[in-house]
Amino acid sequence: MVSARHQLVADAALDVLAGQGSRGLTHRAVDTAAGLPPGSTSYYYRSREALLGACVRRLIEQDHGELDALTPLITAKEPAALAEALAAVLRGWLTTGRRRHLARYELSLESVRRPELATELHRAGRTLRERIAAMLAELGAVDPPRQARWLVACIDGILFDNLAGAYSDDPVAAADLPVVARDLIDVVLPGSRR
Amino acid sequence: MVSARHQLVADAALDVLAGQGSRGLTHRAVDTAAGLPPGSTSYYYRSREALLGACVRRLIEQDHGELDALTPLITAKEPAALAEALAAVLRGWLTTGRRRHLARYELSLESVRRPELATELHRAGRTLRERIAAMLAELGAVDPPRQARWLVACIDGILFDNLAGAYSDDPVAAADLPVVARDLIDVVLPGSRR
Repeated sequence: MVSARHQLVADAALDVLAGQGSRGLTHRAVDTAAGLPPGSTSYYYRSREALLGACVRRLIEQDHGELDALTPLITAKEPAALAEALAAVLRGWLTTGRRRHLARYELSLESVRRPELATELHRAGRTLRERIAAMLAELGAVDPPRQARWLVACIDGILFDNLAGAYSDDPVAAADLPVVARDLIDVVLPGSRR
Repeated sequence: MVSARHQLVADAALDVLAGQGSRGLTHRAVDTAAGLPPGSTSYYYRSREALLGACVRRLIEQDHGELDALTPLITAKEPAALAEALAAVLRGWLTTGRRRHLARYELSLESVRRPELATELHRAGRTLRERIAAMLAELGAVDPPRQARWLVACIDGILFDNLAGAYSDDPVAAADLPVVARDLIDVVLPGSRR
């Protein structure tokens, strides 16, 4: 059972990761970001590993919440509806979700050196892809697991490019996102535009 | 003029970034990785900013070298040749190029908090995309700048997924890379498979 206080600390840790990077993530910095007395973060999450694990679990919870919200939008089984929903999701990630995704990238890179963290991220990433594969199967994809993996990776690449990569100073305009989304859907569901 | 010693230090710094992350990058760690006496890295690159700048410039140099090698491979103006070349590049990045790309991701995330570094990365990223756009134009792409941006972002997302993301423990098999490459080329050059 995760208390409201645990959640507050995990959210503050994600915010520190996004704003100060992995280098800036200390228990003390999280205390400050959470507006809690010194020592609070250590009380809830003794080690750095425990704190990072809490961050990952908080992110995953939010990912599933987003997928839950997305599911009814594509029940029409129309690729156009999927593209529209995808464009809306991308728009959210580039704006209000920006810091959350920067934190996720920090965690991913830290997981390269932390096997336990990597295991959590792998498991969560695959569960999400399974849910997306199920959606694609509903829409008639021929090889849903492969296509879900491909789609998620490309979406993530576009996100990275606009949040931390070559275009972080000039992210893709909201008006262009539906085009990007349709391009992606076209590959996953060939013939969907015709 | 960059001396051999400057280059050695920059390569060692990239290796530290890949192996120990941004958190592990200190002048002392680079001295050790380069097998140089303590103080050497500070002598060549006084500040962290200067050291990071050297890393970025070294990466860009390697990127252009790769593009130079790729150019003659696609002079046949065949999308199939482009897909093959792309698969070969991806294979290299997932194996021998692994550490270099992990270092690049670390630099990208650090650039979110370092405007000077971000400026260098933006400029370099766009120059690379211009070269790729020119290749795509040769191949008959209808909107080369947009498609180059899209293609590079997707390739990078696939790379991230396999190096630090949900599949870093089980990267895409070499045998499957041509399929991935063809999927990507299909979007950029629709109708190329038909």
